[in-house]
Amino acid sequence: MHDLPDSIPALWSAQAHMPSVLGRQLVIDRGEGNYVFTADGRRLFDGTAGLWHANIGHGRPEMAEVAAAQIRRLETYHVFGRYVNDRALELAEKVASVAPIDDARIILNSGGSDSIDVALKLARRYWQLRGRPERTAILSRDLAYHGLHAYGTSVAGLDFNREGYGTDSLVPDTVRFDTYDIERVRETVERVGPHRIAAIIAEPIQGTGGVIPPTPGYLEGLQAIADEHDILLILDEVITGFGRTGEWFAAQRYGLRPHIVAMAKGISSGYSAVGGIIVAPELWRPFYEADAPIYRHGTTYSGHATAAALALENLAIIEREGLLGRVRELEAVLETELAGLAGDDRVAQVRHAGLLGGIELRPEVSAEQVTDRMVEQGWIARPLRGNVIQLSPPFTTTDAELRELVAAVPTAMDALRGAPVPAAAR
Amino acid sequence: MHDLPDSIPALWSAQAHMPSVLGRQLVIDRGEGNYVFTADGRRLFDGTAGLWHANIGHGRPEMAEVAAAQIRRLETYHVFGRYVNDRALELAEKVASVAPIDDARIILNSGGSDSIDVALKLARRYWQLRGRPERTAILSRDLAYHGLHAYGTSVAGLDFNREGYGTDSLVPDTVRFDTYDIERVRETVERVGPHRIAAIIAEPIQGTGGVIPPTPGYLEGLQAIADEHDILLILDEVITGFGRTGEWFAAQRYGLRPHIVAMAKGISSGYSAVGGIIVAPELWRPFYEADAPIYRHGTTYSGHATAAALALENLAIIEREGLLGRVRELEAVLETELAGLAGDDRVAQVRHAGLLGGIELRPEVSAEQVTDRMVEQGWIARPLRGNVIQLSPPFTTTDAELRELVAAVPTAMDALRGAPVPAAAR
Ligand SMILES: Cc1ncc(COP(=O)(O)O)c(C=O)c1O
Ligand SMILES: Cc1ncc(COP(=O)(O)O)c(C=O)c1O
Repeated sequence: MHDLPDSIPALWSAQAHMPSVLGRQLVIDRGEGNYVFTADGRRLFDGTAGLWHANIGHGRPEMAEVAAAQIRRLETYHVFGRYVNDRALELAEKVASVAPIDDARIILNSGGSDSIDVALKLARRYWQLRGRPERTAILSRDLAYHGLHAYGTSVAGLDFNREGYGTDSLVPDTVRFDTYDIERVRETVERVGPHRIAAIIAEPIQGTGGVIPPTPGYLEGLQAIADEHDILLILDEVITGFGRTGEWFAAQRYGLRPHIVAMAKGISSGYSAVGGIIVAPELWRPFYEADAPIYRHGTTYSGHATAAALALENLAIIEREGLLGRVRELEAVLETELAGLAGDDRVAQVRHAGLLGGIELRPEVSAEQVTDRMVEQGWIARPLRGNVIQLSPPFTTTDAELRELVAAVPTAMDALRGAPVPAAAR
Repeated sequence: MHDLPDSIPALWSAQAHMPSVLGRQLVIDRGEGNYVFTADGRRLFDGTAGLWHANIGHGRPEMAEVAAAQIRRLETYHVFGRYVNDRALELAEKVASVAPIDDARIILNSGGSDSIDVALKLARRYWQLRGRPERTAILSRDLAYHGLHAYGTSVAGLDFNREGYGTDSLVPDTVRFDTYDIERVRETVERVGPHRIAAIIAEPIQGTGGVIPPTPGYLEGLQAIADEHDILLILDEVITGFGRTGEWFAAQRYGLRPHIVAMAKGISSGYSAVGGIIVAPELWRPFYEADAPIYRHGTTYSGHATAAALALENLAIIEREGLLGRVRELEAVLETELAGLAGDDRVAQVRHAGLLGGIELRPEVSAEQVTDRMVEQGWIARPLRGNVIQLSPPFTTTDAELRELVAAVPTAMDALRGAPVPAAAR
């Protein structure tokens, strides 16, 4: 279909069909606030905050200062065994202070996929220690995205991420349940057998699946099922954590009491690779007993000092600039603007929660073509599964920018109407 | 055994028995060259380069400058789909230029565990695509350490890292083989059935297992088995990559032709969280065909621009300061000094390869107690499995420092002799 260009870069891009991508890559080499710039000088509004992470915007000089000062003092020291560094300790205290779990302990690592694997391993390890060896199953939502390490891949509700390895699930004993209807979730739990279930994992608002806010009662229903059957509830707040819904965590917005919260992205707004989990006392205490076994977690860069210093400054910026409140204001703007689009006959549905918007297009219009056209016009948006356009700009977005971002969608659709389908679109 | 102190930090440390560690944590808050400093002002020689990663030493001002400049320009932009950033492209080219594989493609991510999960998934995915669905087994060495995500945990040859989850292996279809005797490896391969094996993964020099250099002919034997049976050979060069053995990669030192090389640590010397894999044409080409499926890999911080800029500067420092040559010189010093220890009747065996040394103590002397005593005397060393003391200082170590580091081992053993066993030691 496409010939490979003469010179193929050495980088194998992520989630990319390389033969279609080569020759039309967008090379970003500068960022400033809510905008990024391509190597050929085009200015693009970052309407997705990268991969829903660049919450405080790009290229902030305070962050540059913090990184330089920290590296000059101590780029990092590991947190294995007796060793720790002051920044990792500090970041853990800060996260615990805003966490949706009281008296939590914090495991730090380098990203969202890391946090999923360590969370699911902890759930399994906990039940073995508690003498309930039959509790090994992990249940997750249809359309879920939980990263791409082996355990996250195994609980993927987006089948294309789980498939192609020769078995249904790399780590077996995983089951998907309905993403909308809590009664059907109950049926799945009964079918699997509640006593066999180690944990239920859920994104409170599904991101990559297509920006799917919870149907009324759904999350409360998951909580009730967990309570009733002594099943661990793990919330994947990699996208929603640290302000995306106008609270520190979606657990607070929806009044949930998770046993583990997985985090990444917003903790550092992408200035450094940080992830981790927030762990409830019920789970960490057994590993803090004098005769307890070690829960064997940890990567070399768990608690990386410079990464932690950047996360701390990011959280300080969110507080200093009142960005949680700002997200609540922007949510109202987003709601209004999306409502205005709902009548467009090319739009199947609009969805939002916090500063997360999804525009589902009718099958006749391709979200991929629309976002390709949008970027030509200076607006970054992202096509998601289900022919959905993702809008999730930085928290520092102005009302006017948000309005223009939403308006760029019908403009791009208009421009496409009757335009020849570009060869590169798939 | 120990009561928890009144105030327990929020940070749940890595690979730590928390009740023994609390109250005697070593908080590092400054680093300079080959030394780090504790919060209470003690200066410690970093005799392990942290977790075998701080190869260029700590707190280097060039690195601080690079980080600040990069963040001011662009902290990062993701490399999903059509998007890339200039620094990720540049780092991939640089890695490819020193790689032990010609015409390689490079997948970037954030650490060694990441690189293992993506490598093993790629091995599985490749065979499915090639129409050999029965090739799903992954074989690994006894005593292997391949990180702690779900796939790395599953292929762990250190049983304590694999156990406790209720099944023998989180991802099934993994098998361990002998770590010393290539004939016994052949037997295992025959028993499993070569046609069922997707890949063999091996650390060329086992690190966490106790600094175990290959027995003569062992690695060449793995290569021969892979060639003979069309099995993929994955080298885990997370420790050995980027100079630890005096070559860019151990594959070059030992003359191996791997299909995948996993990397992390030395690529950035720990200044930023970077990992990834180097992929041979045989494996990447099928995914670059026009009608190829997407190999679905990628994390948010794959190809992180600031992380990549720091890795590039680290590699430039290694070249500018001739550190590969320096490692070869230091290896000779280490060899001599360890030979001098071999006669000590408390020492069972000394081992080394490159700037990696292991001192195995007799059972009467505890490596953990010795390293605890060494740190009181200003020398960081690390106890490994098998009652071994790890020595792997930065490449910037002087001959004199290396001699003193080795000498600190018998000094600490002398000090321990007859000393009461400290309550905190386990
Ligand atoms: C809900 C969710 N969980 C986990 C992840 C994985 O995070 P990472 O890409 O940092 O590994 C993501 C990333 O998009 C995510 O959206
Ligand atoms: C050989 C080897 N592989 C993989 C890893 C995992 O790397 P990380 O800790 O960066 O996840 C390590 C870490 O020590 C290692 O030594």
